[in-house]
Amino acid sequence: MTSGLREPGEIESWDEAVDVVVIGLGAAGAAAALDASRRGAETLVLERASGGGGTSSMSGGVLYLGGGTALQRACGFEDSPEEMYKYLMASCGDGPDEAKIRLYCDGSVQHYDWLLEQGVPFKPVYYHGVSGEPPTDDGLVWSGSERVHPFCDIAVPAPRGHVPQMIDQAGPLLMQKLVAAVEASPARIAANHRCTALVQEPDGSIIGVVAETFGEERAIRARRGVILTTGGFINNRAMIDAHLPLLNRCMVRIGAEGDDGSGIRLAVAAGAATIHMSAGSISLPATQPWGLKRGLLVNAQGQRFINEDAYYGRLGEWALFHHGGRAWLVVDDAIFEQPEYPREVVAVGETPAELERELGLPEGSLESTMALYNHHAEKGHDPVFDKLPEYVQPLTKPPFGAFDCTTENSIYAAFTLGGLHSDVDGRVLDPEGRPIPGLFGAGRATSGLSVGGYSSGLSLGDGTFFGRRAGRCAASN
Amino acid sequence: MTSGLREPGEIESWDEAVDVVVIGLGAAGAAAALDASRRGAETLVLERASGGGGTSSMSGGVLYLGGGTALQRACGFEDSPEEMYKYLMASCGDGPDEAKIRLYCDGSVQHYDWLLEQGVPFKPVYYHGVSGEPPTDDGLVWSGSERVHPFCDIAVPAPRGHVPQMIDQAGPLLMQKLVAAVEASPARIAANHRCTALVQEPDGSIIGVVAETFGEERAIRARRGVILTTGGFINNRAMIDAHLPLLNRCMVRIGAEGDDGSGIRLAVAAGAATIHMSAGSISLPATQPWGLKRGLLVNAQGQRFINEDAYYGRLGEWALFHHGGRAWLVVDDAIFEQPEYPREVVAVGETPAELERELGLPEGSLESTMALYNHHAEKGHDPVFDKLPEYVQPLTKPPFGAFDCTTENSIYAAFTLGGLHSDVDGRVLDPEGRPIPGLFGAGRATSGLSVGGYSSGLSLGDGTFFGRRAGRCAASN
Repeated sequence: MTSGLREPGEIESWDEAVDVVVIGLGAAGAAAALDASRRGAETLVLERASGGGGTSSMSGGVLYLGGGTALQRACGFEDSPEEMYKYLMASCGDGPDEAKIRLYCDGSVQHYDWLLEQGVPFKPVYYHGVSGEPPTDDGLVWSGSERVHPFCDIAVPAPRGHVPQMIDQAGPLLMQKLVAAVEASPARIAANHRCTALVQEPDGSIIGVVAETFGEERAIRARRGVILTTGGFINNRAMIDAHLPLLNRCMVRIGAEGDDGSGIRLAVAAGAATIHMSAGSISLPATQPWGLKRGLLVNAQGQRFINEDAYYGRLGEWALFHHGGRAWLVVDDAIFEQPEYPREVVAVGETPAELERELGLPEGSLESTMALYNHHAEKGHDPVFDKLPEYVQPLTKPPFGAFDCTTENSIYAAFTLGGLHSDVDGRVLDPEGRPIPGLFGAGRATSGLSVGGYSSGLSLGDGTFFGRRAGRCAASN
Repeated sequence: MTSGLREPGEIESWDEAVDVVVIGLGAAGAAAALDASRRGAETLVLERASGGGGTSSMSGGVLYLGGGTALQRACGFEDSPEEMYKYLMASCGDGPDEAKIRLYCDGSVQHYDWLLEQGVPFKPVYYHGVSGEPPTDDGLVWSGSERVHPFCDIAVPAPRGHVPQMIDQAGPLLMQKLVAAVEASPARIAANHRCTALVQEPDGSIIGVVAETFGEERAIRARRGVILTTGGFINNRAMIDAHLPLLNRCMVRIGAEGDDGSGIRLAVAAGAATIHMSAGSISLPATQPWGLKRGLLVNAQGQRFINEDAYYGRLGEWALFHHGGRAWLVVDDAIFEQPEYPREVVAVGETPAELERELGLPEGSLESTMALYNHHAEKGHDPVFDKLPEYVQPLTKPPFGAFDCTTENSIYAAFTLGGLHSDVDGRVLDPEGRPIPGLFGAGRATSGLSVGGYSSGLSLGDGTFFGRRAGRCAASN
């Protein structure tokens, strides 16, 4: 017997029968359960932990939304689905899912309203000055690379990070509200239930699940569908080794214990296809506060490799995937600030050459990089990486220092982006692109909007958006 | 019904029954069939084309072997399994399969002898001066980055490219000999048979296949096992989009028409796991003849990004995956040579600054790169990328020129490296790492030795080596 898979003949009797079974109660699972039950489907959510929340409640709570949401308008920002679409198509990595991005942008305004209806509060105040997760309870932030090269030339920028109103606890708040909404809905929640197998008919259809609760096995029939919202696989060493081994070097792995790829593995055992399994979100928060964007991020050859004003999700991906996690942020005395995250100043020098020696970089390499940068910065521009003029300033005031941005000594916060191949209605697909009857997925168990170049809020965003669609589709199955 | 999969109840009657069915007659399939039939298993090879050969017969025929083969010794080179192991572990990308590499290195001398026994001829002459595929019929060449940084510090270098004896036709010769050996063996070959489905018991075991031949469907029972040797997926656009979309930019796709991932998809439908699906071999033959290694390979920021003496398989991967396929090889008049492959000299300048302008690189960028390089090259070294001294020479003699190494205008020769997860005996594994009973794989339908930083000959090498192991294991099943 393939592990994680049962045939109907192995089920002596069903302990329970419902229309829709949702596996996992993070943001995607909650959204799926809400919309499935509102469509009239008898819905049961199985959560392996003792309560809902999952990785979503460990997150910063940011949802990437736009196109002119009520929050954007209240904060005085214009946006359109078209500009949002252009940004996402350009920034979401190589080979993003155009159909999902299209629907998401067109439905984003309505999706924000839906979040309000579930009781998720957003303070209509724009916060400027820190990326992704503001230190306040303000509602709107920049959470991507919209304003910087090359994206500012591609799409009209707008801030799209929508943050539930609670200082430092926006993720827990989001999940508290969504779980409360599920509890208030007809859907039922069974905590401490770990799904151990899908039940598959010989014709390929998924007709139920087997779950374990306190050592006891229960067979649950799903008349209309099973929705996998089990999260990614950052906490599964074998899967990380098999798909994106560089993530083993990251100090911070963003994910609840349950992010071990269990749902992905269950579906693969049932014949599902996975896509973009090597994609990951890697945040390197090296430029907080933003004044540090005036620094130079250099690799082991003393070369710059990205415009330092790019979003930190982009910085981390470039540093890890393209430069082996060997990076330092170089500053001079004029721009030095205490960084938000504790990061060691690993080297100081009275000249670029001395700093270079202290860092052990090849002779002349950093000196040459800084000379070229300063040459252009005197005139206020950066033709090599096109950093915005506001962050371009010659680094000439000694002493010079370098913050350690290597994987060994800095925060690289990682989670996985690849997963099951699903269509826009959450149907899980086989290798030929055909739906596996009765099997649905959403959230990071699936490949969603971003397959690289991450903007914060895309996972909570696509998880809830496509979770709802999966719930509705399963309910109508 | 999940496509590509049948249940036994759907098979009215078996048209034929054998012990082992091999799908695909490239190098891996031939090796599997030979060793399965020699173990006494009644073996049938199904090939969708009208004859054997596959991608192997379109290749350069190089097999990466070492550890002190008879050919290496005849050419006066010392090698050991341990040094070969150290090189492969260091060079085969992130997260290579250590168990496979270990076995391969330990068995490489014997595997070379086996190739001789199959009638594959090797001329015991070492060829110096061109990588991978010599323009002669000589037998031994350098086909990797063994002698260059960082590998020369990790393992004692030895040439390990073993090339069958025929000018420009080593790949076809290899396959001619291997197919002839299969024909002379008890194994049977059925050409024009395309496998369209695996037959899977409810317990997960694979017990046969369905094949199509001239519009007719035939069910073939495999009493001991089915071995998938169907090649990679370079010719499947949807799979490339899903796993390594950058390969869409490559002008040359190395693969027979059959490299459409069919075997991978059949196995995934049956619950198999895939690994390293984003790994690819990308050859950028920009430094042939080797004198051109004295040039500088620069990216769109005018920066160097690799030691130019690295093997061309490594150059291509770096240029494509880390620098978006934007690269130029800069030379001066002193080192200019007519390159082996036609590549356009896209820009010429009397000074580095003029060349830089002609290339449209940021002002001062190439100038700065060349100044730093020349500064060190005067003293004969390259501390930034550690190119070997024999290729380090200041580029100071005008005019300066640049060969176009962008994906649009140069040869990037690509094929896929990821595939089914298999163990050292070719058993195809499910997502929990457990064998799917009766299902085996070898060659590029599986993930093999290299998951990056390619050395030529690894695919024919691991395909035949692990193909044989799969054949023996299936035969003993």
